[in-house]
Amino acid sequence: MSAVAVHGVGTSHFGRQPGRDLVGLAFDAVHEALADAGVDGVDAVWVGTVFGPAGVAQRVLRAMGVTGIPIVTVENACASGTTAFAEAHEAVRTGRYGRVLALGLEQMSTAFAGAITPEPTDPEGRSGLALPALYAMAAARYLHLGAVTPEQLAAVSVKNHAHALHNPRAQYSGRHTVEEVLASRMVADPLTLLQCCPTSDGAAAAVLAPATGGSREVAVRGVAMRSGAPWNHASPHVWGHDVVRDTAADAFAAAGLTGPSDVDVLEVHDAFTIGEIVTTEALGLAPPGGGGEAAAAGVTALGGAHPVNPSGGLLSRGHPLGATGLAQLAEITWQLRGEAAGRQVDGARIGVVETMGGGVSVLDGNACVVAVLEAP
Amino acid sequence: MSAVAVHGVGTSHFGRQPGRDLVGLAFDAVHEALADAGVDGVDAVWVGTVFGPAGVAQRVLRAMGVTGIPIVTVENACASGTTAFAEAHEAVRTGRYGRVLALGLEQMSTAFAGAITPEPTDPEGRSGLALPALYAMAAARYLHLGAVTPEQLAAVSVKNHAHALHNPRAQYSGRHTVEEVLASRMVADPLTLLQCCPTSDGAAAAVLAPATGGSREVAVRGVAMRSGAPWNHASPHVWGHDVVRDTAADAFAAAGLTGPSDVDVLEVHDAFTIGEIVTTEALGLAPPGGGGEAAAAGVTALGGAHPVNPSGGLLSRGHPLGATGLAQLAEITWQLRGEAAGRQVDGARIGVVETMGGGVSVLDGNACVVAVLEAP
Repeated sequence: MSAVAVHGVGTSHFGRQPGRDLVGLAFDAVHEALADAGVDGVDAVWVGTVFGPAGVAQRVLRAMGVTGIPIVTVENACASGTTAFAEAHEAVRTGRYGRVLALGLEQMSTAFAGAITPEPTDPEGRSGLALPALYAMAAARYLHLGAVTPEQLAAVSVKNHAHALHNPRAQYSGRHTVEEVLASRMVADPLTLLQCCPTSDGAAAAVLAPATGGSREVAVRGVAMRSGAPWNHASPHVWGHDVVRDTAADAFAAAGLTGPSDVDVLEVHDAFTIGEIVTTEALGLAPPGGGGEAAAAGVTALGGAHPVNPSGGLLSRGHPLGATGLAQLAEITWQLRGEAAGRQVDGARIGVVETMGGGVSVLDGNACVVAVLEAP
Repeated sequence: MSAVAVHGVGTSHFGRQPGRDLVGLAFDAVHEALADAGVDGVDAVWVGTVFGPAGVAQRVLRAMGVTGIPIVTVENACASGTTAFAEAHEAVRTGRYGRVLALGLEQMSTAFAGAITPEPTDPEGRSGLALPALYAMAAARYLHLGAVTPEQLAAVSVKNHAHALHNPRAQYSGRHTVEEVLASRMVADPLTLLQCCPTSDGAAAAVLAPATGGSREVAVRGVAMRSGAPWNHASPHVWGHDVVRDTAADAFAAAGLTGPSDVDVLEVHDAFTIGEIVTTEALGLAPPGGGGEAAAAGVTALGGAHPVNPSGGLLSRGHPLGATGLAQLAEITWQLRGEAAGRQVDGARIGVVETMGGGVSVLDGNACVVAVLEAP
């Protein structure tokens, strides 16, 4: 078994790019990741995508001359990119392949006019619940229980859009006020437009190989993957993200961490403001029902005790599903190398990536991946 | 590293089943595979599908109460089922998980009215070439070079439909004559209806775990996976299935075989008659340009020197894309246990499964998986 390191990362720009195609977006990410790693090829590729066409991985990679090697597409809803990372990591760890590329990509702007259409055979689909509505129900329940206020929900949006001011690849950024966030167009009560991730196209990639002690290598301390329920119907803690809590416990144990206090910087799944709040609770950064208060108090902002989503998160960078997990991984890699410029968490040594393939089925059908990384 | 065995297999019925859904089809396969293995649960699941909706693996499995464990969907065009098998095998081999389920599923009847629609951004799509037309071009070239005759093409269909008479799960079977095959409706000249795999729905599954020497365990001797070109434009050997040849060489080497003469029974990718002919050449069962003659002479029939597709193959069993590779694996497992009843290859000790995720892109964008298995 080998100790594994991230040797290079790369991403495309993120945003509505209907005039581009998956090949071009992927090229930007792969080219940058290979150059960043200082290599010109890999031994195998895992590609994460949700809505890419049949054979998408082979098609995209042969367009850049990558063929003859094992190439596998993986899909795990919003966690597809981190699933590709988990599989690439395992392949290097076990010596299956020497140097592996994990690539995530998605073009949402050409696939959907608005929110992702729920599957008609799912409970959500039968109920007509698209994802903003599902998250809105969770937010409404939190509000009803007094576990969050509208202003605390909005504070997540204010924070992440402000973080994105320093991320030139983000789709949106801005110095919004809580009042502006709450006054933006209502999408699914209580979630306003600025509390929902935008429709986005993009790609992100990472090169993994055995650790050699290089000065720019980010070590992979632990990776965990699970399926399960975001919502525990038997608990008064209405939206516990149990699958996030359990997956994080696995990853922290694999990494030898005692808990979230060991972590300096995190990129987590904030497709909607309530998502980040519940996730910070699931990760132990705030007590149950305390995530909103923590966000409003600046605990999860740059400069706070637990900086979350310095990139701007999905709310600002955008959320091209298959690309998201590897875009998060790229941000944490830059943070741990000290290359994150205006959004740098000073002296960050331990970083965490969390993605939940979430909400496509409200019952037990979610996927989650959590990775723990360490500075060179 | 553990020696890996197939402990149980199962499949649904194969055929047009638009009134069923993926959950029901998968249930039939998983229930049978778990019962066959004598177990009631697994530690992780890989699911192969091409056209399943986002989050399909999680959705299907939680409907049968399987949750909390890692579940990953993989896609590699027609090789998706064998890719799920390859990933499950690797997970057991390296000790990543103890007992793993590989599941393949597809419902073609509700996705397409006829042939799979090519992607408009691919060369085939731009040319209006659906898969029957692509294979027809290969067959036409073979005919032009005198490497095959129409009657030899038809002989593959006659053979596989006759094999399927003994396979109660096959979609179609029959004692056709060469004349009947050639007289069936023309789909893409020279390929007639009986030379094309039918639109099919189905699922297939296998339980993998470390080998314990059990009397019903089928050992996995070697598995290989590659991407590459089915077609070598620089070679006069027009349709070499180079990616099949190279992947098989890897798998044979991993299994310690000297060559195809060590193999007693094979299930290969015969989506169209010309496909089986070229594949038998790529696998070394016949010389280049000799695959048609071998089929017509009975070399690849039950009772011949190299029995190919005793199940009836994709031509007869049907071709639900993600399920196919694991349906092939199930057949070889039954063969190596001596459980294949009227289609049994007597005394079969070594079996091979080959699937090419083929034709979606004619250039270098194909995937291939080859597995070598051994009787208990």
